[in-house]
Amino acid sequence: MLPAKLLKRPRAVISKDDRRWLTIAATLAERGRPSSAPNPAVGAVLVKDAIVIGRGWTQAGGRPHAEAMAFAQTGQSARGATLYVTLEPCAHHSERGPACADLAAEAGIKRLVVGVTDPDPRTAGSGMERLRAAGVEIALANDPACGMSLAGYLCRTRYGRPHITLKLAMSLDGAIATASGQSQWITGDLARAHTHRERARADAILVGGATLRSDTPQLNVRLPGLEDHSPERWVLSSHPTPDGWHQLPAVEELGRMAPHQYLFVEGGSSAAASFLRADLVDRLLIYRAPILIGGGKSAIADYGLDDLASAHNIWSLSARRQLGRDTLEVYDRTPCSPE
Amino acid sequence: MLPAKLLKRPRAVISKDDRRWLTIAATLAERGRPSSAPNPAVGAVLVKDAIVIGRGWTQAGGRPHAEAMAFAQTGQSARGATLYVTLEPCAHHSERGPACADLAAEAGIKRLVVGVTDPDPRTAGSGMERLRAAGVEIALANDPACGMSLAGYLCRTRYGRPHITLKLAMSLDGAIATASGQSQWITGDLARAHTHRERARADAILVGGATLRSDTPQLNVRLPGLEDHSPERWVLSSHPTPDGWHQLPAVEELGRMAPHQYLFVEGGSSAAASFLRADLVDRLLIYRAPILIGGGKSAIADYGLDDLASAHNIWSLSARRQLGRDTLEVYDRTPCSPE
Repeated sequence: MLPAKLLKRPRAVISKDDRRWLTIAATLAERGRPSSAPNPAVGAVLVKDAIVIGRGWTQAGGRPHAEAMAFAQTGQSARGATLYVTLEPCAHHSERGPACADLAAEAGIKRLVVGVTDPDPRTAGSGMERLRAAGVEIALANDPACGMSLAGYLCRTRYGRPHITLKLAMSLDGAIATASGQSQWITGDLARAHTHRERARADAILVGGATLRSDTPQLNVRLPGLEDHSPERWVLSSHPTPDGWHQLPAVEELGRMAPHQYLFVEGGSSAAASFLRADLVDRLLIYRAPILIGGGKSAIADYGLDDLASAHNIWSLSARRQLGRDTLEVYDRTPCSPE
Repeated sequence: MLPAKLLKRPRAVISKDDRRWLTIAATLAERGRPSSAPNPAVGAVLVKDAIVIGRGWTQAGGRPHAEAMAFAQTGQSARGATLYVTLEPCAHHSERGPACADLAAEAGIKRLVVGVTDPDPRTAGSGMERLRAAGVEIALANDPACGMSLAGYLCRTRYGRPHITLKLAMSLDGAIATASGQSQWITGDLARAHTHRERARADAILVGGATLRSDTPQLNVRLPGLEDHSPERWVLSSHPTPDGWHQLPAVEELGRMAPHQYLFVEGGSSAAASFLRADLVDRLLIYRAPILIGGGKSAIADYGLDDLASAHNIWSLSARRQLGRDTLEVYDRTPCSPE
């Protein structure tokens, strides 16, 4: 017989099926990115007898929440169901709608599986606590897919800055241009289209001042159907900023970007070095063309690496795919910043 | 009814099974590399009723040939069998042994499947012709795996130079050292062991003069059991060469390396550029560590690329694998030089 203390709150068991439903919820959440801003892009799935009876994701501007959308689809049938949600349901009332924890209690769900807890001090465990008090079985998964899906929100809440992706498009020998400055084109059409899709997932794009002056990049999204998804354009520069551009005088002033969750840094080599020097890069997106340039312009300027040993064990390969002849590699900071 | 001319010499049909046996022959051929030098490393399989009855590969110093080794295993049972061989059987008698075409005719094989023809003018089709005259069915596969397996011999015979692999070990941003020159270590143990295995497959290794003077590399094979497989060491330099090193004053003088079939170029960036400038690199072996160096020493110096467009469609990815945290990518020159 186990001591009463251990029996009182049984350890939540997360099954493989639970992980699968959470992954589906995280995939749904992607539909709210980045339109859910300033709210996190959350995904929710209501499951009863292994059948999905409701689905939701945070709507544009942040409301309705993912759970509210799912419950709106189910009505009475949610009684006895399991709610899978990437982020702990909110516990605070708002002028814009009821707390999701209350919605879930009223709907009569039997079980709640949460991807990650909400670090927002207004929730921070109280969403789960309220449902536990209402007799709902609670399981916290600490699920990596959900954490990754909420990386921007978690960075914003924990560190007061957006999640930062550094994009690099380069040759096999790490050049982003020839010695004479020619850079069009290194990667092909598919890689460029993919970059535009990544832009559309960000709240803001940034380039360095030198890149802005020399390349006058548009940095907009030019994919059919996504033309209105172009994020804010920022320049890392202490110089006056042209119309249509926001100014970030130094990476230390990233607070200016609030409430943005996702920043996409597109270079050049000095801007990349500024973010790396401050250890402010969470993710690398490397588009690599199968060409050799030789003596070209390096992708990354000196960022103050003093010893080769300290360059290791920082980046973990999380995805690799072909984009025509080019290869895309995604590396995440180790340990992943949001964890 | 087809015209008699077309019936007389039916077009050889290469089946999937034929390709499979040729691939096996090419794998066997690898056992003779590079010890078969100065002869090509050939592989042969004798197959009867879908069963392997004999196998062979070119022995150390070039004799016996692969076919002779296979026939020595079979005796009378080779009658009616199919001989798969990566390279056309030789047709010229030598003091060192009979012509393989004669051996095959005497053995009474029914069919011969050849990977690639032998460009050696002493054979150049006459090996197949002799067997055709003896009533053997002949099929020429022009098989890419066999061509790749014989790349060194084909380069040597056609172009009078060895097949050249350029090895690069670098960071994600294409650096082979920090700005201050630190280069130990970028890649890990597995990548270095793999490099030593590749050295053991070459006839000669080369570095640039600057690399020899600054790094004094050993460039030997330090894998257990392969210590005596260290190839000749060459330096690309017009300066006097230290003991134990051969001198290549310029890439244009590669004829000095005869009869070597495989050259492994290990850098540095200027030596790499010299070979690339002369379009003398057949294969790239890129070991890449998941690290960022920033402002480091480039893997490849300026090799005279005047327009970015001309850098494209040169290199085709032929293999990729993980070596611990590092990635190995193999690129072959497009179109592959030996074809």
